[in-house]
Amino acid sequence: MPFNVEPYKRRVHFYETDAVGVVHHSNYVRWMEEARIDFMRRAGLPYSDLERAGILTVVTDAACRFVSSVRFDEEFEVTTRLVDFNGVKAVYEYVIRSVTCGVTAAEGTSGHCFVDAATRRPVRLKKRCPAFYEKALSLLDGPAAGRAGSGSPI
Amino acid sequence: MPFNVEPYKRRVHFYETDAVGVVHHSNYVRWMEEARIDFMRRAGLPYSDLERAGILTVVTDAACRFVSSVRFDEEFEVTTRLVDFNGVKAVYEYVIRSVTCGVTAAEGTSGHCFVDAATRRPVRLKKRCPAFYEKALSLLDGPAAGRAGSGSPI
Amino acid sequence: MPFNVEPYKRRVHFYETDAVGVVHHSNYVRWMEEARIDFMRRAGLPYSDLERAGILTVVTDAACRFVSSVRFDEEFEVTTRLVDFNGVKAVYEYVIRSVTCGVTAAEGTSGHCFVDAATRRPVRLKKRCPAFYEKALSLLDGPAAGRAGSGSPI
Amino acid sequence: MPFNVEPYKRRVHFYETDAVGVVHHSNYVRWMEEARIDFMRRAGLPYSDLERAGILTVVTDAACRFVSSVRFDEEFEVTTRLVDFNGVKAVYEYVIRSVTCGVTAAEGTSGHCFVDAATRRPVRLKKRCPAFYEKALSLLDGPAAGRAGSGSPI
Repeated sequence: MPFNVEPYKRRVHFYETDAVGVVHHSNYVRWMEEARIDFMRRAGLPYSDLERAGILTVVTDAACRFVSSVRFDEEFEVTTRLVDFNGVKAVYEYVIRSVTCGVTAAEGTSGHCFVDAATRRPVRLKKRCPAFYEKALSLLDGPAAGRAGSGSPI
Repeated sequence: MPFNVEPYKRRVHFYETDAVGVVHHSNYVRWMEEARIDFMRRAGLPYSDLERAGILTVVTDAACRFVSSVRFDEEFEVTTRLVDFNGVKAVYEYVIRSVTCGVTAAEGTSGHCFVDAATRRPVRLKKRCPAFYEKALSLLDGPAAGRAGSGSPI
Repeated sequence: MPFNVEPYKRRVHFYETDAVGVVHHSNYVRWMEEARIDFMRRAGLPYSDLERAGILTVVTDAACRFVSSVRFDEEFEVTTRLVDFNGVKAVYEYVIRSVTCGVTAAEGTSGHCFVDAATRRPVRLKKRCPAFYEKALSLLDGPAAGRAGSGSPI
Repeated sequence: MPFNVEPYKRRVHFYETDAVGVVHHSNYVRWMEEARIDFMRRAGLPYSDLERAGILTVVTDAACRFVSSVRFDEEFEVTTRLVDFNGVKAVYEYVIRSVTCGVTAAEGTSGHCFVDAATRRPVRLKKRCPAFYEKALSLLDGPAAGRAGSGSPI
């Protein structure tokens, strides 16, 4: 059963716009990060737990499709879903909507792996941070949920 | 015959790093933009020509795979290739290398379409900016070159 | 009588940190802008009113003293005061506090003038946007309040 | 005798512009940092020497006066001068000029102190990094040169 958290919501800052008059596309990647950290906090997966366990998350890839532009001071919201997780890697999907205009602004995805803060080598959360591992598994959603259910490799 | 331009090169700014001690991944999307504009200038495709013709380019999508991290003050270079172009859309590919470490840091891609600055509707460069169109066609490179050769839709 | 608005409040984003492990100082200038726009909205001075009247505000100067560092995910708040205003120029003062640590993080100031969006020449709000002018006067606070009371030049 | 280094020079990136069509003012603070690090390298004062000695520089304050706006793709240059230095603190002054337009865009200043990377307590470079100390003293320029000459406190 997927976990539902409130979307992350705020207004567009002026310094996020560019000379075309709309939000510069690089900021969507930053919004995805803001939304992911907010999602983790609301879902009870605080990033600080990983830090205490000496674990860093490394972003392995990010992609975004820009659908419609967003302007200064518009309110937007980001819906975040954890769509893949096996204790070594995690994949999130995002939908960014303009609340002001009621349309989808962008859709994105980001991949992450978990590494030891000292060695920067991949770690298995099942072993290193089992509470986090179990919690994350319970949050799995979307297309990847089936995959995980049919046997995650770890 | 693909066009070869010098890679775009500079050092990492301190404000581009994050608390993990390396460049924050959102900056790679900005580096791709810097490199693309440098590529266009060096290749004789100045962005200002489009502006004078009342045409904007809109970024439709961007993706990046992060291979190895880059640190403050490292010198990096970005190799840019135009891999798809039909007068309505363009796709660029990028390889970001750390010159200091001699390794690939990231690989990315970005998609763009050309729109009228006033109406924000797609335009055909073949009609609106034929010199730019011909020049861009001559720069086509890589996997997309074959596709373009076998009949671009415009 | 000075106007009291709620401080502007949010958490530090990860991409706002730098390799020393704290917020990069350039972001404080951006937080001042966020807080100023929030202050204007809460005080009934929406920036969009100026835009509709064809008026832009131009930042003429900004300064910040950095007192103590702020880290990723800390909650901070910015208290904004309008300390000078004569219908041509405005000066704001800001105090940035870490809510998490309960200490002052930075103190800043910014100066602004009002210009015609088309000509970029200074305008007098008393004439061009009298409602905004009266409202702003009523918000004047702090050291500049006396000055304004003893005869603003316009 | 003041030290003359080449100004720091580059073009404006598109992502540095805002919806008014010019460079967002917060970027000038970032340009000052870029220019300062370039100045240190050219003058033989590499930041990496401090890092190896376990010393961090902390920005204590920054101020900027914005004189005229700069647009996308304009070439600008930053002239940096070390105007105060006593082994505990340093003050730099900057003039940012548009090379394209031949006018001053902004003038700024920044203050810095030197701290131990582990304890974050102020250090005296005369003791901890004497070569850096002597070199920096020889670079002192401008109004503060007299002050330093008449007896720096350390």
